[in-house]
Amino acid sequence: MFKILKKDGRAKRGEFITVHGTVQTPVFMNVGTAAAIKGAVSTEDLKEIGTQIELSNTYHLHVRPGDEVIKKLGGLHKFMNWDRPILTDSGGFQVFSLAKLRKIKEEGVSFNSHVDGRKIFMGPEESMQIQSNLGSTIAMAFDECPSSVAEKAYIRDSVDRTTRWLERCIKKMKELNALEDTVNPHQLLFGINQGGIYEDVRIEHAKRIGEFDLPGYAIGGLAVGEEHSEMYRILDAVVPELPGNKPVYLMGVGTPENILEAVERGVDFFDCVYPSRNGRHGHAYTSFGKINLMNAKFETDDRPIDEGCGCPVCRNHSRAYIRHLLKAGEMLGMRFMVTHNLYFYNNLMAEIRDAIDEGRYSEYKKNKINGFRMGEEGEKNV
Amino acid sequence: MFKILKKDGRAKRGEFITVHGTVQTPVFMNVGTAAAIKGAVSTEDLKEIGTQIELSNTYHLHVRPGDEVIKKLGGLHKFMNWDRPILTDSGGFQVFSLAKLRKIKEEGVSFNSHVDGRKIFMGPEESMQIQSNLGSTIAMAFDECPSSVAEKAYIRDSVDRTTRWLERCIKKMKELNALEDTVNPHQLLFGINQGGIYEDVRIEHAKRIGEFDLPGYAIGGLAVGEEHSEMYRILDAVVPELPGNKPVYLMGVGTPENILEAVERGVDFFDCVYPSRNGRHGHAYTSFGKINLMNAKFETDDRPIDEGCGCPVCRNHSRAYIRHLLKAGEMLGMRFMVTHNLYFYNNLMAEIRDAIDEGRYSEYKKNKINGFRMGEEGEKNV
Repeated sequence: MFKILKKDGRAKRGEFITVHGTVQTPVFMNVGTAAAIKGAVSTEDLKEIGTQIELSNTYHLHVRPGDEVIKKLGGLHKFMNWDRPILTDSGGFQVFSLAKLRKIKEEGVSFNSHVDGRKIFMGPEESMQIQSNLGSTIAMAFDECPSSVAEKAYIRDSVDRTTRWLERCIKKMKELNALEDTVNPHQLLFGINQGGIYEDVRIEHAKRIGEFDLPGYAIGGLAVGEEHSEMYRILDAVVPELPGNKPVYLMGVGTPENILEAVERGVDFFDCVYPSRNGRHGHAYTSFGKINLMNAKFETDDRPIDEGCGCPVCRNHSRAYIRHLLKAGEMLGMRFMVTHNLYFYNNLMAEIRDAIDEGRYSEYKKNKINGFRMGEEGEKNV
Repeated sequence: MFKILKKDGRAKRGEFITVHGTVQTPVFMNVGTAAAIKGAVSTEDLKEIGTQIELSNTYHLHVRPGDEVIKKLGGLHKFMNWDRPILTDSGGFQVFSLAKLRKIKEEGVSFNSHVDGRKIFMGPEESMQIQSNLGSTIAMAFDECPSSVAEKAYIRDSVDRTTRWLERCIKKMKELNALEDTVNPHQLLFGINQGGIYEDVRIEHAKRIGEFDLPGYAIGGLAVGEEHSEMYRILDAVVPELPGNKPVYLMGVGTPENILEAVERGVDFFDCVYPSRNGRHGHAYTSFGKINLMNAKFETDDRPIDEGCGCPVCRNHSRAYIRHLLKAGEMLGMRFMVTHNLYFYNNLMAEIRDAIDEGRYSEYKKNKINGFRMGEEGEKNV
């Protein structure tokens, strides 16, 4: 299922083969929370900007329109009109971050919907059931996401529960895949490593979940506010302890620089809301760092966002026009920003894959990060 | 400049030839108020949905980003990246409807910007100057838009002033087109007929402005709330009094039925915010009338908005998906709705042109309107 084509240091160039097509790794998954990319970007657009795999959120889709509705309509692929791979998260992260008044028990978590306050219970079986209804290509195990600065004793207990929940996820997913009316009988399950910032807990957990021989493993709980150096330290410790023949997915990370550093540490899958969220606020990624299109200096700037960029927006529209659209509150401005930023991330991954293929990853990474820090005029970006 | 290819009753099939290309008439102009179609529809999308001519609003662009900025960037065509014809309104309608504390004098109108309250003066010369800076294909004369139910005496005075303003517009436009650094030296000017609901005032005014031999004539002041039968009565009276060899533009109108009726009365150009505004509120135009996608009955409806529709949205997405996007507040839902509705209007005009070409307009119109009234199930639409 996962073929490693080439290694360059710890960076891996791979192919992840699924029933919905093959993903070239390292890859950045484009986030479409509620079965849509924020910023009016369509699935047709995604193909144009090189998106290989889309990520949707189980919690959001369970709440609206409901996973039963999506199942009735033939699953998430048909619902969104997207025939390439989709990864769904477990709902766990949203339950622990969005929902109010949650209560964690061995069976799962009780909480109130952020949309209508309705009481919902979600445990490993419920999460698998919902993801099975969605019929995603890759389902994520239901885990607890404790605060990364929680006490070590709490983290240990939480990680133990996450392991027990993983066993229940595996069992349930197997049953669901075998059902006659299942949307995707080949649905894959990735396990999630937790353990906060404690290397020993992380490593012990990585070894335990590695034994389940799952098609992929994620590292969770590193996208929520810790220092970048902490994240890299944990990656240095934990990636080598996960099965070497399976893809590693670093959840919710991150900046272009984070991704470049994590690829060097052996990570294969990424997702993050930065390109769409920053885009909606006027921040564009470029080869010379981020620029804020709301800035007055772009008022009559007829250049594209990034002259080196091949995205549909840079091929057709100027900074001045996009700035005007953003200032005027025209949705089209947000669409252009998000399209450009997603292309930037997708294209960064394509460059990364080329660099690994050609055995020059470390050099590539260094130059790329230097570029980001230089600014357009060759001065330090601030 | 305007070639009449065929007449079918009073309905005309024509070609309007400009420096930015030829417009096949009757035509519906797609409204992009602030140099963008509301609902994140790009100029690339407009080409895909058969848009021949785009309309932008002088008042909005004067206030933001400023017509001087747009001139500096090479004019509105370059700014928006749209190489087909653009019509700009005169700003008059917005001044009379949006702006607060306006004061009308012979020279023009003083008012406060709706964006920042800044005091602005606009008269015929200012309107021409702004439209010249924008470099649109067709500029509209600066007119007064009195309430259609104003007293006849007021309307008479107002129409007289509108005629005097038209003379000043013609003079100013000629001067501007001759300037070395003008954006579009071939900018065309359309005159506007006013006169409220008084046939005699309308007819007298039509005759007077007809003498100026302008490249086109608009009928203003009929989109602001009067009964449809009143509008048709005025069209019956006034269209035959305008020069028969020039296109007639009915400003701000209207529903598909209004357009079908007005074409039969000799109208060639239309514009209206209905398709985009209704789209943003979940209302889709179809061959069997309007439907509201927010309606619960569409929750699991996997059919396209209109099975007979060839638009990019109907080719790719279901009612259930679009409904979900709208309910979830995803911009993509609005983009889909506006795209479909604009295609509907553009396609309606293409059908109208075919029907006139083939000399079966009256029959076509009758069947089309009957269809709108039938509803999807063949029952009366409500």
